Amino acid sequence: MFHSKVFVTLKKSILDPQGKAVEQGIHSLGFEAVANVRIGKYIEMDIDTEIKADAERMTKEISEKLLANLVMESFSCSTEPVIE
Amino acid sequence: MFHSKVFVTLKKSILDPQGKAVEQGIHSLGFEAVANVRIGKYIEMDIDTEIKADAERMTKEISEKLLANLVMESFSCSTEPVIE
Repeated sequence: MFHSKVFVTLKKSILDPQGKAVEQGIHSLGFEAVANVRIGKYIEMDIDTEIKADAERMTKEISEKLLANLVMESFSCSTEPVIE
Repeated sequence: MFHSKVFVTLKKSILDPQGKAVEQGIHSLGFEAVANVRIGKYIEMDIDTEIKADAERMTKEISEKLLANLVMESFSCSTEPVIE
């Protein structure tokens, strides 16, 4: 069994209005030093397989096909064995 | 200058219908081995300070006050210097 984490972020060239709104919220809390807030998605999943390479390949394929819109978003992922 | 990453996830005891929907999508793509899909938020920000402890404290405070709803969500964060 493996546990995968996928981080999906908007590409740098794409405006992030949600991030801008959160940034304004952070400033209004008094944290003026904060800038360039970007919001992304964080997806976790368990994959029932014994082979790490299989789990990594599946995670990458799922990210490309379903989780990330590669026109606007990029992703990174990591896969670790589950210690039971 | 420091770069902070915050991961906000629903607590284990809270149902995640969005994760369930994504899980069904993953299964319908043919990845039957995937289970326990959970969706969270991933927030990145730059913090303009010279002191790492300050950046870490700010990240934690912002997460607690604004980014995470601690009744339903938990968060983890990391802060690294920006290499320019």
